[in-house]
Amino acid sequence: SGILRDLNEPLVDHTEGQLFLNDAFKIIMEEVLCKGTDVNQKVCEWKEPEELALLLDLELRETGEPSHRLLQRVKDVAKYSIKTSHPRFLNQLFTGVDYHSLAGRFLTEALNTNLYTYEVAPVFVLMETEVLRGLREMIGWTEGDGLFCPGGSISNMYAMNLARYQRFPEVKSKGLCGLPRLNIFTSSESHYSVKKAAAFLGIGTDNVIIVQVDERGRMIPDDLDEKIKLAQSQGAVPFFVSCTSGTTVRGAFDPLDRIADVCEKHKLWMHIDAAWGGSVLFSKQHSHLMKGVHRANSVAWNPHKMLTAGLQCSALLLQDTTNLLKKCHSANATYLFQQDKFYDVNLDVGDKSVQCSRKVDCLKLWLMWKAVGSIGFTERVDKAFSHARYLVEQMKKREGFHLLHEPEFVNVCFWFVPPSMRGKEGDADYQDRLAKVAPVIKERMIKQGTMMVGYQPLGNKVNFFRMVVFSPQLSQKDMDFFIDEIERLGIDL
Amino acid sequence: SGILRDLNEPLVDHTEGQLFLNDAFKIIMEEVLCKGTDVNQKVCEWKEPEELALLLDLELRETGEPSHRLLQRVKDVAKYSIKTSHPRFLNQLFTGVDYHSLAGRFLTEALNTNLYTYEVAPVFVLMETEVLRGLREMIGWTEGDGLFCPGGSISNMYAMNLARYQRFPEVKSKGLCGLPRLNIFTSSESHYSVKKAAAFLGIGTDNVIIVQVDERGRMIPDDLDEKIKLAQSQGAVPFFVSCTSGTTVRGAFDPLDRIADVCEKHKLWMHIDAAWGGSVLFSKQHSHLMKGVHRANSVAWNPHKMLTAGLQCSALLLQDTTNLLKKCHSANATYLFQQDKFYDVNLDVGDKSVQCSRKVDCLKLWLMWKAVGSIGFTERVDKAFSHARYLVEQMKKREGFHLLHEPEFVNVCFWFVPPSMRGKEGDADYQDRLAKVAPVIKERMIKQGTMMVGYQPLGNKVNFFRMVVFSPQLSQKDMDFFIDEIERLGIDL
Ligand SMILES: Cc1ncc(COP(=O)(O)O)c(C=O)c1O
Ligand SMILES: Cc1ncc(COP(=O)(O)O)c(C=O)c1O
Repeated sequence: SGILRDLNEPLVDHTEGQLFLNDAFKIIMEEVLCKGTDVNQKVCEWKEPEELALLLDLELRETGEPSHRLLQRVKDVAKYSIKTSHPRFLNQLFTGVDYHSLAGRFLTEALNTNLYTYEVAPVFVLMETEVLRGLREMIGWTEGDGLFCPGGSISNMYAMNLARYQRFPEVKSKGLCGLPRLNIFTSSESHYSVKKAAAFLGIGTDNVIIVQVDERGRMIPDDLDEKIKLAQSQGAVPFFVSCTSGTTVRGAFDPLDRIADVCEKHKLWMHIDAAWGGSVLFSKQHSHLMKGVHRANSVAWNPHKMLTAGLQCSALLLQDTTNLLKKCHSANATYLFQQDKFYDVNLDVGDKSVQCSRKVDCLKLWLMWKAVGSIGFTERVDKAFSHARYLVEQMKKREGFHLLHEPEFVNVCFWFVPPSMRGKEGDADYQDRLAKVAPVIKERMIKQGTMMVGYQPLGNKVNFFRMVVFSPQLSQKDMDFFIDEIERLGIDL
Repeated sequence: SGILRDLNEPLVDHTEGQLFLNDAFKIIMEEVLCKGTDVNQKVCEWKEPEELALLLDLELRETGEPSHRLLQRVKDVAKYSIKTSHPRFLNQLFTGVDYHSLAGRFLTEALNTNLYTYEVAPVFVLMETEVLRGLREMIGWTEGDGLFCPGGSISNMYAMNLARYQRFPEVKSKGLCGLPRLNIFTSSESHYSVKKAAAFLGIGTDNVIIVQVDERGRMIPDDLDEKIKLAQSQGAVPFFVSCTSGTTVRGAFDPLDRIADVCEKHKLWMHIDAAWGGSVLFSKQHSHLMKGVHRANSVAWNPHKMLTAGLQCSALLLQDTTNLLKKCHSANATYLFQQDKFYDVNLDVGDKSVQCSRKVDCLKLWLMWKAVGSIGFTERVDKAFSHARYLVEQMKKREGFHLLHEPEFVNVCFWFVPPSMRGKEGDADYQDRLAKVAPVIKERMIKQGTMMVGYQPLGNKVNFFRMVVFSPQLSQKDMDFFIDEIERLGIDL
């Protein structure tokens, strides 16, 4: 049929391939990194899905395409993708670009290996250990364990599974069948991954007991204590408390020391979801927000958020020194983790994971850390706080901007009240009308491509904006722009 | 303190950063892609961990380092890392490089977005849908659902969780507490991720019932039927059968049609772990190995293995059209999946996942597929089979190479028997001595850097080699080299 070429002719032509990669790299540089970070260019190029599908010609076919066509595709993908490194992208808890990290990510992709054995990942087994050690040191732990996981949600799941295993080691072989009902405690403003984890691990979302928060969104330790006692009195077995350092929406920090007291009293595993807020540990000025962090059993921390390490980069950190991680997750597969290897098989870290293939997520963080030093991270965190402060001060001076409250962190949450609604707070339909403002402004900004910022409701608070200002690219004039732009987009509503 | 620069000066210098990235790219090109694929260069540069740690100077410090120092680090990381794209790397079920895929991966990293909402990933929401559709089409499904997951182990977990949810929808909220004991069925040669999943999901490894295999490692459907009945008679509730298309070690394909009959009879969810073998579906000549695949409820398929898409690329494919994936995993977080958006919120696929951040794993596969067409994948798969066949024929002609049996797939499993042991099969210590041969040969090849191939024991079979020959780079002379090299390394044992 002519399909099968000679067996002596490889199917890959390296020279041709490398030429293509070179050309693609140039396009990436130009479209994503130059234009994509240029404040004079759009942050997004909105298309309706039907139109975009046509433009991209996504269909997969029998025959391949020539290089020039493929390079055009690279360009198109770049063109219609969101420029998350653009200074006006503040839609999520990641933004901006760090070129050292990006170099580390390209290197990771080119090396294409798995972090499971020393045999296939000698550099990264040692490097991951060192990066985890560095992160643990910020917590104040001189010993411990850990692992990079594919995202904070999975890091939280790991913590929950470890806590369960520590309490009931037989759960690994016997499952939950026959065990009493287990209860998890977390605040009403914690990340939804706690519930997802409870469902996935077979514990059930009803067994996630919601603890009340104060007016700024911080867990109330007394309520935690009461809820634990209540659960016990109802026959459930509390085993896990997930507190949050830097809640997703309001950026609240749960009072760790007081929660640790409650956990100690009831002998519960204390987990801190510091996916978002963990990076304050680099700041002498702000690390007090996590006072008591060293008393936790586990901490989840995402350098892909505030530290701009690039997706994905999430560390699960453990105080444990008893090899719990391995005991809990190992399957001892003899085809991968042979015990008769010629080197120390403790270097084969893969069996600590519930994954088999595991991406190398440490190199990008390591290279960036080497580049800027801890001091560089301190600077980034402190600067983010300063920007948030500046933004808040400006909003206070401007009519129509209503802060939810003074921010504890860099999440600046506010309503924009258009002129037509000002002074009408008493109207019966005020909240309904206010709820509709943010979605319209959002639609306009996306369609015009001028900025991207998130909004959401929270409890009985109707839709408000959350600006997260931490990209190392930002300067004060960007803050001024954000405020002006929201006003421009919403003035007529 | 001088640490905080002026608020009007961003912390990132794009020109400087882009220069660095350019230089790093050149090093990657030279060290990883040119030297790293050159058959005259070593596949690995063995160092003892203590020595390697010193060479790499991994420690993370207060202050940053200048560019030239960082570029040297990029070089060092490349130098001491395993060259998994080297033609002599056949240690795992991934190997080789595809430059189109790699360009897609660089683009993915540069665009740095998350696959959860159309808002931040318009191109990739549509692209993932199309790639999943393309993969489902190979199975013979015109409808269905799916998701890219961080690896095949997690794809298998998803399938297990979906099956459980379909059978007992209340498990999501109530957990397993109060439910009967659930049983899972899989063969003795299935991947260890099935057990890891059972432990993680709270089902327990004891509830993974092991089904016997035939002499080639394929699940025996009659034994499955009996084990199901036995489980039922003991009060357990069977709900999930995980069969394998392409087992990890021997490359066996479970007889899907006959297993589907058993699953239908007992009304069990049929999952196919085709992480390794799924790609045979691209081959008219070999797809018969998966005859009956369309009868499954779910299929896990890793293009990062045989199709050389690069880590990680694993698809979970579902026949379901009832939105089970979303129902099972959704948490309806209002901060991310607002329902009052201006576009069709069904495009926000993120709530189908148990992750929040989710890497874009579809672009690399899409670009590669566009580049070579389905026909290109057919060619790769067929060629891999031809190489395996050639390797087997050569081994048969060569003294000292003992095949476990004729391979069904591209896993060529064999013992190398050194001259000193030939004809001594009857000796009492023969098996013990044979078990020690592969580890020594392995140590020598790694220390000399000439090739990397895996070995393992299996049941009562002592350590044997598994050669997986599917890299698109390979040619017959590489096969000849592999045999000569094993002989050279083991001749004196
Ligand atoms: C507080 C918190 N925890 C956990 C997560 C989940 O992290 P990931 O998106 O990496 O899964 C997030 C994500 O925004 C978060 O804000
Ligand atoms: C048959 C089989 N299933 C599942 C897996 C796990 O896939 P992953 O390594 O992507 O988790 C493997 C890995 O080798 C495998 O061989």
